[in-house]
Amino acid sequence: MKIFLAQQNYHIGNFEQNTNKIIEAIEAAKKAGGDLILFSELSVCGYPPRDFLEFQDFREKCMQAVHQIKQHADSIGVLIGAPSENRQREGKDLHNSAYFLYEQRIQSVIHKTCLPTYDVFDENRYFEPASSWEVIQFKGKKMAVTICEDIWNLGDNPLYRICPMDQLTQFEPDLIVNLSASPFDYTHIDDRKAIIKRNVEKYAVPVCYCNCVGSQTEIVFDGGSMVFDRQGNLIKQLPLFQEFLDYVVMQQDGSFSNSVVQQNETISNMELQPLQLNEHLGIAQIHDAILLGIKDYFSKMGFSKAILGSSGGIDSAVTLVLACKALGSENVRAVLMPSHYSTSHSVEDAVTLSKNLNNPYDILSIAGIYDRFLETLHPLFRDMPFGLAEENIQSRSRGNLLMAIANKFGYILLNTSNKSELATGYGTLYGDMAGGIGVLGDCYKLQVYELANYINREQEIIPQNIISKPPSAELRPGQKDSDSLPDYHILDKILYQYIELRKGPQEIKDAGFDPALVDRILKLVNTNEYKRNQFCPVIRISPKAFGVGRRMPIVGKYLS
Amino acid sequence: MKIFLAQQNYHIGNFEQNTNKIIEAIEAAKKAGGDLILFSELSVCGYPPRDFLEFQDFREKCMQAVHQIKQHADSIGVLIGAPSENRQREGKDLHNSAYFLYEQRIQSVIHKTCLPTYDVFDENRYFEPASSWEVIQFKGKKMAVTICEDIWNLGDNPLYRICPMDQLTQFEPDLIVNLSASPFDYTHIDDRKAIIKRNVEKYAVPVCYCNCVGSQTEIVFDGGSMVFDRQGNLIKQLPLFQEFLDYVVMQQDGSFSNSVVQQNETISNMELQPLQLNEHLGIAQIHDAILLGIKDYFSKMGFSKAILGSSGGIDSAVTLVLACKALGSENVRAVLMPSHYSTSHSVEDAVTLSKNLNNPYDILSIAGIYDRFLETLHPLFRDMPFGLAEENIQSRSRGNLLMAIANKFGYILLNTSNKSELATGYGTLYGDMAGGIGVLGDCYKLQVYELANYINREQEIIPQNIISKPPSAELRPGQKDSDSLPDYHILDKILYQYIELRKGPQEIKDAGFDPALVDRILKLVNTNEYKRNQFCPVIRISPKAFGVGRRMPIVGKYLS
Repeated sequence: MKIFLAQQNYHIGNFEQNTNKIIEAIEAAKKAGGDLILFSELSVCGYPPRDFLEFQDFREKCMQAVHQIKQHADSIGVLIGAPSENRQREGKDLHNSAYFLYEQRIQSVIHKTCLPTYDVFDENRYFEPASSWEVIQFKGKKMAVTICEDIWNLGDNPLYRICPMDQLTQFEPDLIVNLSASPFDYTHIDDRKAIIKRNVEKYAVPVCYCNCVGSQTEIVFDGGSMVFDRQGNLIKQLPLFQEFLDYVVMQQDGSFSNSVVQQNETISNMELQPLQLNEHLGIAQIHDAILLGIKDYFSKMGFSKAILGSSGGIDSAVTLVLACKALGSENVRAVLMPSHYSTSHSVEDAVTLSKNLNNPYDILSIAGIYDRFLETLHPLFRDMPFGLAEENIQSRSRGNLLMAIANKFGYILLNTSNKSELATGYGTLYGDMAGGIGVLGDCYKLQVYELANYINREQEIIPQNIISKPPSAELRPGQKDSDSLPDYHILDKILYQYIELRKGPQEIKDAGFDPALVDRILKLVNTNEYKRNQFCPVIRISPKAFGVGRRMPIVGKYLS
Repeated sequence: MKIFLAQQNYHIGNFEQNTNKIIEAIEAAKKAGGDLILFSELSVCGYPPRDFLEFQDFREKCMQAVHQIKQHADSIGVLIGAPSENRQREGKDLHNSAYFLYEQRIQSVIHKTCLPTYDVFDENRYFEPASSWEVIQFKGKKMAVTICEDIWNLGDNPLYRICPMDQLTQFEPDLIVNLSASPFDYTHIDDRKAIIKRNVEKYAVPVCYCNCVGSQTEIVFDGGSMVFDRQGNLIKQLPLFQEFLDYVVMQQDGSFSNSVVQQNETISNMELQPLQLNEHLGIAQIHDAILLGIKDYFSKMGFSKAILGSSGGIDSAVTLVLACKALGSENVRAVLMPSHYSTSHSVEDAVTLSKNLNNPYDILSIAGIYDRFLETLHPLFRDMPFGLAEENIQSRSRGNLLMAIANKFGYILLNTSNKSELATGYGTLYGDMAGGIGVLGDCYKLQVYELANYINREQEIIPQNIISKPPSAELRPGQKDSDSLPDYHILDKILYQYIELRKGPQEIKDAGFDPALVDRILKLVNTNEYKRNQFCPVIRISPKAFGVGRRMPIVGKYLS
C-alpha cells in the first residue's frame, strides 16, 4: 500500500485555495500510484479557525469543500480534516473530525477524542469529544484514525479521562494514522517524536503522522511529518518548515520498503530553504520558524513589503536580517530616526547593516518633531524636569513616522520588541511597541544575541559593534538598559522561571535568586499586562508566548 | 433560618482585600443573627482569575484565604467560592468549587458541573466538572448547592450532557443555593430572572441566588441577587451595580417572612448611585454598567484621574460625561486638539460641554506638529497627494499628545471609539484607537446617540449641536463619516446581524439588505481584525463584544 503524506500550508477560511491545494496533491498521488493520502487536522479550513466555527455559513463552506474533494477521491483513499455536526442533542455543536473519502463517497467520519484546551488551544470552546471508536477497513488493512492530541494520551496524560488508542486497540488495527496541526516550539519537535515512538511501542503498530506546516498569525506549524514502522524505526521524516508531499510503501506484512522512498523527493513547490541542521540546532530551528512566521504573515495578509525602525541596536538589527531573508532585501525598508540623544555610532552601525544587507534605508531626524511637541506641551509641562513623558514622545514620534510611511506606500510595520522588554514593560505603547507582527516578541534578549551570532556564523552581516555594545534605548543622554533593568543574564532566567515554568515567587527565590529582585520583576510582569494586551501578535517559538496562549487579568492585584 | 446574601465587588488576586471584605460581611451577618451567608462564585480570588489559576502559588493563596475565613464561620454557615484540587488522577487539576464552612471547619466542598466555555468564558481551560452530587444538611434543611451555569441547564441546554439539579433533586432538597459570577449584558438580566424562575417551577423548591458585582477589566458583573420562594414569587432582589448585603428569613415550612426584610436595607457601603429605573430601561442599565466599568477600571488599576481627547463629536462628548459621572468632573481632563481641518464649531461645542460639566480642559493645536511631520517626511512623500497617511498623522499626533500628558501627570487615557467604528476599522491605530479602556467600544453609534439623549433627559448637558450635526473625523476638509461608511441606521443593523447574531452573508442579504453593501461591510469587519487585536479592552454591555469574547483569526481569508 502506497501511502502519501501531504504536508501543506493552509490559509484559514480560504476555501478555494485550500481545496485546490488538497486536490492538487490528490491528483499527484494518484498519478504516482498512491493507495491512500493523508492530510492534516482541519485541513479544509485551516487550523485554528477559532470563532469562524460559530458561523453556520463557515461550516457549510467546510462541507462544500469536503464534497468537492470527495469527487477526486475515486481510486485513492483520502483522509482530510474538517468539522462535522454533532448529531447528538447534547454537547457542543461540532466535532473535530477526519473524513475518510473513497470511491467518491464519505466512507467514515472519525471524531477527535482529546480536545486540547490550554495555552493557544480552545478546542472545548467548539467541539464535543468522540464517544465511540471504530477502525477503518481499507484494502485489507484496519486503520486506527486519530487526530493530533489523541495520540498524546497514552493513558498517562492527566488532562484526559479517555485514551482513544486504548479504545481502538481492541479492533487490532494494522496501522495508526494521525492527522495533526501541531505547532512548533523549541521543545516540541523532540517531544513529538518521542510520543509517536511511545505509541508504536505500546500498541506495536506502525504510525503514519501527517502534520501541517505554515504560520497562522502567531502560531508556526512546522511540519516534520513522520512514519514509524512497528519496530519503532523512523522510516520517513518530512522536512521542517516547508510544504512537502512524499510517500511510504507498506508491505502486506506491515513492514515498509524503504528503498522506494527518497529522503528529499518533493512533488509540491518548495518555497522556503530547507532547514540548516548544524551545531546550533535549537537556534537554527527558532531562526527558521521566525522566517516562516514573517513570510506567511505577509503573504496571507496580502502584503509583500515591510518597514521597520532601525536604531543601531541588536533587536532591530536581528529583525531586519530576518525580514530581509523572509521577504527579500529589496522589500524591507529600514528607517533610521535619530533624536537629540542618539549617538553617532548608532546611525553608523545601522547604515553599515543596511549596506551589508543591501536593503533600502532612509534617515529622518525626529529632533524637529520632538521640539515641536515640547513647544505645544509647554503651557502644560512648563519647567517640569525631563522624564518618562519626554522619552515616550520620541518613541511615539518614530512610531508615527513609520506608520505614515507604511500607510503611504503599503508596508506592514515590523515590531522589534523582545520578550524581556515585553515582560517588564520596558517599551512605549504606540511607540516602539507599534507594528503588525512581533518578530522577536517570544525571544528573550539572550536569545536575540544567540540569533545574532547564528546570523553571523559564516560572515559578519550584523556589525560586531551592534552585538558588543551595551543595549540602550537612547531616549535620554547616556541611557542604558541596565539603568532600569537587571543584567539580562539574571533577568531572563527569572522571567523564564515565572513565564515558561509558572513558578511562584517563593520557588524562584528558593532557586537562589535575590528575593527583592524576584519580587520587583514579577511585579513588573504583572503590572504591565495592560501594555501587552495592546501589543501585536508575536511569532511563537516557546512553549509559553505572550498573546493568545497566556491569558492574564489586566485589572488584578496578584504579585503586584 | 435567616439567610444573608453578600453581593460584593472583588479585586482579582487581591486576597487581603477580598478576604477582609468577606469576613466583614460574615461578622455583620452574625451580629444580625444570621444562620447562613452566601457569597458569589470564586469569591476569594475574584472572577475570572484566568491563567493565575495555573500558578500553584495562587492556588495556595486561595486556600489560605478559605482557612482564614473559616475561623469566622463559627456560629454561622458560610458558602464561599474558591478553586479546589481535583483529587482524581485524570482531568484538569482544579474544580470550580463552593466551600461550606461551619463550626470553623470545611464541612463540604461542592464542585461546579456545567463549565461555560464560550464567549468570555474559558472554564474548561482550568476546571474539571463535578462527577458526583450531594446535598448539604444544615439546621434540618437540605441545600442543593450549585454554581452559576449549573442552573442554566434544565436538561434542555444542548451545551451540557449533565443537568446537576436533576442529580440533586433525588435527595429532595429544601432549597437551591446558587453562587454566581454572572456578567451584565443588555439581555442578561431578564434571562437570568427567567432561568431562576424555571428552576423553581421545575424542582418546586426556593432558590437563593447570589451574584457578584463589579467590573473586571471588560466584564461588568451587575449583582441583582435574588430569592424566589417555592411558588415562584420574587421575595427579594438586591440592587444592580452596587455592593449590597441583605437577608431573607425562611420559615420551617420553607416559606419566607417578607415582612422582616426591607427592600433597601443595606449594611455594606453603597458606593454607587442606585439604578434609576425609568422609561429608558435598556439604556439606563447600559449607562450604569459603563459607569461601573469606568469606576472599577480606575480604582482597581490604582488611578483616579482620566484624560481624553474632546473633539466636539458625539463619541467623545458621551465618554466625557460618563467619565465625569464615574470619576468626578474634577478628575477628568479634556484636551481639545484642533487641526487645520477642524471646524470652529467643534472647538466651541467641546468648550461648552466642558463648561457644562465643569471639568478641566485645555486647547492644544496640532497644526504645528502636523506641519513638522510633513516637512520631515517630505523627502519621501514629495508631492504625492494628501491621503490616508496624512489623516492618520493628525490622529496619531493627538494620541501622542494625550499619552504625553497622561505620562506626565498620571492620567489614564480613555478611548472614545464606538463599536461601529471598531467593527469597520474606521479609526487610526495608535491615534484615536489609543487608550487604556474603551468606554463606548461595545456601543454601536446608534446606541451612543441613545446614551446622549438619556444623558440629556432632564437638562442639556451635551450641547444639542453635538447630537444633531453629521458625524465627522475632521481629518480632511469637509470630511463626513458618510463619505466612507453607509448610514449608521443601516450599518449598525447589518453589524448586529453579523456580530451579535452570527448570521452569514446570505442570511443577512435574505433579510432585505443590499447584497453588495453586506459583502462590503462583512469584508471590512473581517479585514480589520488586526486593528481590534491591538485595541484596549472595551466595557462589555452586549452579548457579543469585541475582545476576549470574540476570537477571530487575524490572518485569514473568510468573507474578505
